[in-house]
Amino acid sequence: MTAISPLAPKTYATLQPLAGVRLAAHACGLRYKGRNDLMVAELCPGTTVAGVFTRSLTASAPVLWCREALTGGEARLLVVNSGNANAFTGSAGVASVRRTVDAAAATVGCGARQVFVASTGTIGVPLDDGKITAALSAILAKLSADGWDEAARAIMTTDTYPKTATRSARIGGVEVRINGFCKGAGMIAPDMATMLAYVFTDAALPAGVLQDLLAKGVDSSFNSITVDSDTSTSDTLMLFATGRAGNPAVTKASDPRLGDFRRKLDDLLLDLALQVVKDGEGASKFVRISVSGAASRRAAKRIALAIANSPLVKTAVAGEDANWGRIVMAVGKAGEKADRDRLSIRIGGIEVAREGQVAPGYDEAPVTAHMKGTDIRFDVDVGVGRGRATVWTCDLTHAYIDINGSYRT
Amino acid sequence: MTAISPLAPKTYATLQPLAGVRLAAHACGLRYKGRNDLMVAELCPGTTVAGVFTRSLTASAPVLWCREALTGGEARLLVVNSGNANAFTGSAGVASVRRTVDAAAATVGCGARQVFVASTGTIGVPLDDGKITAALSAILAKLSADGWDEAARAIMTTDTYPKTATRSARIGGVEVRINGFCKGAGMIAPDMATMLAYVFTDAALPAGVLQDLLAKGVDSSFNSITVDSDTSTSDTLMLFATGRAGNPAVTKASDPRLGDFRRKLDDLLLDLALQVVKDGEGASKFVRISVSGAASRRAAKRIALAIANSPLVKTAVAGEDANWGRIVMAVGKAGEKADRDRLSIRIGGIEVAREGQVAPGYDEAPVTAHMKGTDIRFDVDVGVGRGRATVWTCDLTHAYIDINGSYRT
Repeated sequence: MTAISPLAPKTYATLQPLAGVRLAAHACGLRYKGRNDLMVAELCPGTTVAGVFTRSLTASAPVLWCREALTGGEARLLVVNSGNANAFTGSAGVASVRRTVDAAAATVGCGARQVFVASTGTIGVPLDDGKITAALSAILAKLSADGWDEAARAIMTTDTYPKTATRSARIGGVEVRINGFCKGAGMIAPDMATMLAYVFTDAALPAGVLQDLLAKGVDSSFNSITVDSDTSTSDTLMLFATGRAGNPAVTKASDPRLGDFRRKLDDLLLDLALQVVKDGEGASKFVRISVSGAASRRAAKRIALAIANSPLVKTAVAGEDANWGRIVMAVGKAGEKADRDRLSIRIGGIEVAREGQVAPGYDEAPVTAHMKGTDIRFDVDVGVGRGRATVWTCDLTHAYIDINGSYRT
Repeated sequence: MTAISPLAPKTYATLQPLAGVRLAAHACGLRYKGRNDLMVAELCPGTTVAGVFTRSLTASAPVLWCREALTGGEARLLVVNSGNANAFTGSAGVASVRRTVDAAAATVGCGARQVFVASTGTIGVPLDDGKITAALSAILAKLSADGWDEAARAIMTTDTYPKTATRSARIGGVEVRINGFCKGAGMIAPDMATMLAYVFTDAALPAGVLQDLLAKGVDSSFNSITVDSDTSTSDTLMLFATGRAGNPAVTKASDPRLGDFRRKLDDLLLDLALQVVKDGEGASKFVRISVSGAASRRAAKRIALAIANSPLVKTAVAGEDANWGRIVMAVGKAGEKADRDRLSIRIGGIEVAREGQVAPGYDEAPVTAHMKGTDIRFDVDVGVGRGRATVWTCDLTHAYIDINGSYRT
C-alpha cells in the first residue's frame, strides 16, 4: 500500500443518502487482489444526465459509448471498473462495452442508452468483461443508499485516498442536495485526466440544463488542474439528477432560480478537482498559480498552465527553491503576449520581481520560508491586459518517478 | 563535480585550427570557482554571420542584441559567459550588454554590431559585466588557433562533457571545413533550449546564404530535440564564415555547388544536437521517436514531441517498462489527426500494436530486453497520411529532480 498523500484533506466528507440513488461495490478480480474493483450506481426512473469527456483523439471505448448514450438524456445505471481502462483495445473493446451495457440493461429492464460505463487502469490490455457481467447480479443485490464510501473507493487506482464532496442548495425555495466523488492522481491535465468524476443531485433538471451547467463548471475546476500535463483516454465527468427533491421546473441554465445551485455545483466541482491535485502522484506541495494582466482569460490560463506544467518549475518547488527565473522562462514559452519589462511576480504574496527585474530590496529569506510550506502560491502579472485565470498543480518529486517507472510491475 | 553522462560519446572530436578563427577562455569569477567562465572567439575581417534564436517572449538582453546586430551581417568578436544568463534583468541587463559590446569593439577597433554576445546561467540576477570587461585584455592576449577545447568547456553550465563536432566538405572543388561546439543539458526544447551553439567555417559565403542554410538545418536538428519541454530565454545558434578557404563565390543557398556543404552542415548540427540530448539532465536512456502516417510533417513532429515530452512516457523509459499504452495516450493528446483503429507501434523494431490493438501473438520479453538498453527506439504510425518526422529525447529520472531541485544551492 502507498502512504496517503501528505496533502490529503484532514477530514473526508461523508456522503449521506440522496433520494433516487443506490450504490454498491464488488471485487470481481480484474486486476487487484483483496479490494473492490467494480462500482454500480442505480438511478431511479426519470433521472437526467449530462457528461463531459476527454478530448483525446485516442479515447477509450467506454468514452465513445457514453458520448453516444448521452444523446438519450436519461440514466438508470452507471457501471465503473478499475484495474483496466479498456482503452486501445480495438473492436474487442467496443464489443466488451456492448456486452456489459446489454447485460446491465437486462438486469433492470432499461434501454441500453440508459446505461453508462467507465473503465480506468492499464491501457491496451483487453478487458475481461465476463468478470463484470458475471458479478452483476451479486453487486445489484448489494445496492444501498449508503454505498457512497465503498463506491468512491472501488474506482481508485493510484489514488491514496477516496475523494468526496457534498453541498446543499436551494432552487425556488426547495432544498436540493449534491453528492460527488471522483478518482484521479496522475495523467491529470486539461482536458481532463485519468479522472473519473460522478456527481449526483436530487434536483429535477432537464438534461440540457445539466449539460450547460456542467460544461461551464468544468472550465474553472477539472479543466484548471494539472499534475503532469498528460491527458488520459478515459476522462469522464458525469452529472445525474434524480428529480426527487421536487423543486419547481426550470428550463434554462440561465434561470435566476438556479444561481445558488450553480454556485454550489461549481464549488463542489472545484473541491473534487483540488482533491485530485492534492493526490497528485508523488506530490509534496500544492501550488496555486494565478496569472493576471494577460490579453484574455484564455491567454492567462495558457500562461498559468505553462508555468504549472514546466518540469523546471515543478522540480524547483519540490526542492523548496525560490527560483523565480524559471517562472519567467515558462511565461516566455507559453506563446501568449507578455511584456517582459512589465512582468511582476509574487511568491507567497511577497513581491520578488517588478517591471521586468528583481524587486527593489528583494529579500529571499521570507520567500524561502514560504517555499518550505505545503501550500505554495505564485501570482504573476504579465502587464498587457485584463485577462486572469487560476490553475492548480503539485510539485514533481522522486516519488512521481517511483510510481510511474513501475506502475505495471 | 557531476559524473559524466552515461550516454556521453565514447570519443570527443578534437577541433583543429580553422583559418580566420582564434579562441580563448578565462576565469573571470562570475559564479564558478576554479574554472573558466568566459570565452572569446576572434574572427578575421570579412567574416559573415547568421543566427537563430529562442522564440521565448521573455528573451534575454544578449539575444535581443544579437538579433539587432545580425542585420549588419558581419562578425569580428564573439563573447560568451557562463554562470549568469543576464535574462530578466530589465534595463540593467540591456546596459550591461551595451557596455560589454562597446568595450570589446574598442579592443579590436570594430563596429559594435560586429560583436556578438551570449550569457548562460541563472536568470534574474544582474550581470556583473565589470568582471567581463576587466578581463577582456587578459583573454585577448591568450587568443589561439588551438583554443577550441577550452572555449567549448568555458561555456558549460550543467553539462557533464564538452560538445564538439567537425566536418569537411567541398564547394566547387575546394575543400572547406566546419567546426562547431555547443552547450546545453536542461531547459532543452524547441524552439530551442538553454542552448548555445557556435559553428565556424572557413568557407566564403554571404550572410544571406548562411542564414538560409542555418534556418533550414535547425529544423531537423536543434528544433527536433527535447529534454524537458522547457524553453530558455537565451537559446542561440550562430554560424560564422571566415571566407579563408578561397572557394568560388556562391550567391544563393540553392546553388547546387552547396549540396555537399549543406549535407555536412546539417550532419554536424544534428551531431551537436544529439550530444545535447545525450547530456540531458539525469538522462540514462537516449530515445529516438519516429512518427509516420501523419497528416503532414508538421503534424508528425507535433505528435512525436507530445510523446517525447510526456512525463509518463519518460518515466516509463526510465523504469525500463514497455508501457506502450502511454504512447497511445500521448498520441491522443497531441491534438493532431490520428486514426485510433489504424495506429501501430514498434518498440526497438518489434511490433507491439497494430491497427489499434495489441499485436497478434505479442511477446513482451524481447521488447523488455530492448528497454533495458540505452538506445531506445519508438516507431509510431498514426494511419492517416504520409507526414513523417523524427525527434530525440531522453528519459526522466531521479537525477533530473536532484539536479533541478537544487540548481542554485
